[in-house]
Amino acid sequence: MVEKKVKKQKLEDHEVEGNKDIAKRVYEKLDNIVTQIKNNHNPTFTTKVRGLSNVYYDEKKQFIQLGDKQVTRPFLNLGAARKFMQTMIVADKCHEYLLHDKTASIREIYYELKHTVKGTKENTFDGQEESNDVIVDLEHSVNTIREKLGLQADPKGSLYGDITLIDRKHENDEFNASKLGRGGWSIMSRIEPEEIEIKDVNADYLLVVETAAMYGRLIEEKFPKQNKCILIGTSGQAARGSRRLIHRLNKEFNLPVVVFTDGDPYGWYIYSVIKSGSMALAAHSKFLAVPDAKFVGMTLTDVEHYGLENVTEKMKDGDVKRAKELMNYDWFKSAGWQKEIKLAIEKKIRIEQQALANKSLDFVAKEYLPKKIENNIFVE
Amino acid sequence: MVEKKVKKQKLEDHEVEGNKDIAKRVYEKLDNIVTQIKNNHNPTFTTKVRGLSNVYYDEKKQFIQLGDKQVTRPFLNLGAARKFMQTMIVADKCHEYLLHDKTASIREIYYELKHTVKGTKENTFDGQEESNDVIVDLEHSVNTIREKLGLQADPKGSLYGDITLIDRKHENDEFNASKLGRGGWSIMSRIEPEEIEIKDVNADYLLVVETAAMYGRLIEEKFPKQNKCILIGTSGQAARGSRRLIHRLNKEFNLPVVVFTDGDPYGWYIYSVIKSGSMALAAHSKFLAVPDAKFVGMTLTDVEHYGLENVTEKMKDGDVKRAKELMNYDWFKSAGWQKEIKLAIEKKIRIEQQALANKSLDFVAKEYLPKKIENNIFVE
Repeated sequence: MVEKKVKKQKLEDHEVEGNKDIAKRVYEKLDNIVTQIKNNHNPTFTTKVRGLSNVYYDEKKQFIQLGDKQVTRPFLNLGAARKFMQTMIVADKCHEYLLHDKTASIREIYYELKHTVKGTKENTFDGQEESNDVIVDLEHSVNTIREKLGLQADPKGSLYGDITLIDRKHENDEFNASKLGRGGWSIMSRIEPEEIEIKDVNADYLLVVETAAMYGRLIEEKFPKQNKCILIGTSGQAARGSRRLIHRLNKEFNLPVVVFTDGDPYGWYIYSVIKSGSMALAAHSKFLAVPDAKFVGMTLTDVEHYGLENVTEKMKDGDVKRAKELMNYDWFKSAGWQKEIKLAIEKKIRIEQQALANKSLDFVAKEYLPKKIENNIFVE
Repeated sequence: MVEKKVKKQKLEDHEVEGNKDIAKRVYEKLDNIVTQIKNNHNPTFTTKVRGLSNVYYDEKKQFIQLGDKQVTRPFLNLGAARKFMQTMIVADKCHEYLLHDKTASIREIYYELKHTVKGTKENTFDGQEESNDVIVDLEHSVNTIREKLGLQADPKGSLYGDITLIDRKHENDEFNASKLGRGGWSIMSRIEPEEIEIKDVNADYLLVVETAAMYGRLIEEKFPKQNKCILIGTSGQAARGSRRLIHRLNKEFNLPVVVFTDGDPYGWYIYSVIKSGSMALAAHSKFLAVPDAKFVGMTLTDVEHYGLENVTEKMKDGDVKRAKELMNYDWFKSAGWQKEIKLAIEKKIRIEQQALANKSLDFVAKEYLPKKIENNIFVE
């Protein structure tokens, strides 16, 4: 069995910072620029270099990181002035959100700030990709995540199980996610400690499942109750809100995390993003990654072990290509993963979670998951 | 303002039928076939003809319907025998689900029943499209929806507001969707009266919004409380579970339904499916449609009225083509809709819900929606 040690832990500082802390840092950045201007200096804005050249896998921390390379943008430069202006208005708007406890989606801040600059024919933004880009610069510059800047992505994912949450910014609503029928709680896009308190967790581990249908299956079979676990259904690639909640349950409650996806490159990648972070969000692994997450299945070994040959699917050429890419990632270099991916490429097959229904509907809940988790049969 | 008359109503018989009712009908179908075989007749299975030739818009009921044309499949026919076999095993399996209060996703029933028929090289199914197809036949033959056969689609969508639900099949969990923080309830894929009781609704109307971000915005602005409404976020095209819940709130509680989407063909279609049903599910409108649903926006008139020209987006050629198609649908023939769609095609622009942030973040909640809803400014 995975280790049991559910007890509330203190989170690191960068995790618990609230609106006032971040507002202060944004203000200092902006104030510094004003000072530069007053002193007749060419104002500059410093952020981190993005892209593969500054991304690496941190062997010790076991997650993807953004390196220390910096880039400094001067205002008095024809190529940089526009982006500088965009950075300033986004930083200013986020500062305003933080002071007033407001949040906005990244689409909203784009629309909110889009206008033609007075006395010119210049638009502040010509498309959302421009404001998105500046938001990432700001995250890196202030060394935090957009959620702490009052911004949010679209939410996705559901939570079920004996866990009590309090929404401190919403009338201190307190609710237990095992009392919401079979639907569960619709996970918010922002799960910051200042706003969402995880009051209590009564579980031995957290099971993260890829498909909404498997989430429903396990609830119908009373799996979370019988196995004393919390359940999160990600409905495909996990949204940032779901990842932040998974991370917090792991850090704050030492809750072991077990990931259950389809046995294919898409499923493996869902697992690896939860565990090690992603290259696109390399700077944010310390807020989102769960290095000790375990992968329980589906595996190609399962196919033979449980006699599921008849319900595998063929891998398409694109899947095989993707599998080969994953094999080369540092965080898939373990013997277990190399063997697993190799087997899939050789057999050119994939296996879905729901294929276990071929044994019987309740097989996954009564047999497959309990046995594998109890006996620590993970791909490692 | 939309009309207020929230009082629990009795639903029609076809809506409240439970597992035993449907199991009985499935059994009779199967028993009839056994009798035919025992009498040495060539057994037949009768269902409805699908496709455009049997689909029409019912002007009186104001939704899309499937006609009465039937098709009868004989077992002793080389072209029909395989499908006949598939229909029998799916019907038998659904009957088993209903007797044991089980449910399965359509992917699970496919996997559960997929095998090689003993003594042959014939697979029961060669792909899920084959089992899906037979499921629709069965729905039509038994005159119900798959949810009442124990089957389900993937859930999607969230519910927020002063509404109390009871999950009768899950420890009678009782919860109020205004007490779940800003996330709300994750709407299940099956919302059948036998299982999910809507105990109480304290609201003047139901607002259905297209995007998860707008759902979040309105909760942050305390719109549902201040305007005494229930909120459902569909996250794009509404899933069957969300549609069934919207339909039930309208039928069971006479709750007026107001739909709020982007002003583009995709948004209009989301609205029209909620209101009039869809051609693909023509047989199910009586379980899902809401003929008196109102469309509040976004509209092309809004663009001029609120000075949003700067935050419109260009319609792509595909959008224009789709808009022209919609203009020809019977359920978009009203003067209001013809004018709206024509205007969009002429200007070749679309307008998103979130573009209202250009006025201010809370504009949608404090100004736009309350004024339009109070003054009945709907596209009709």
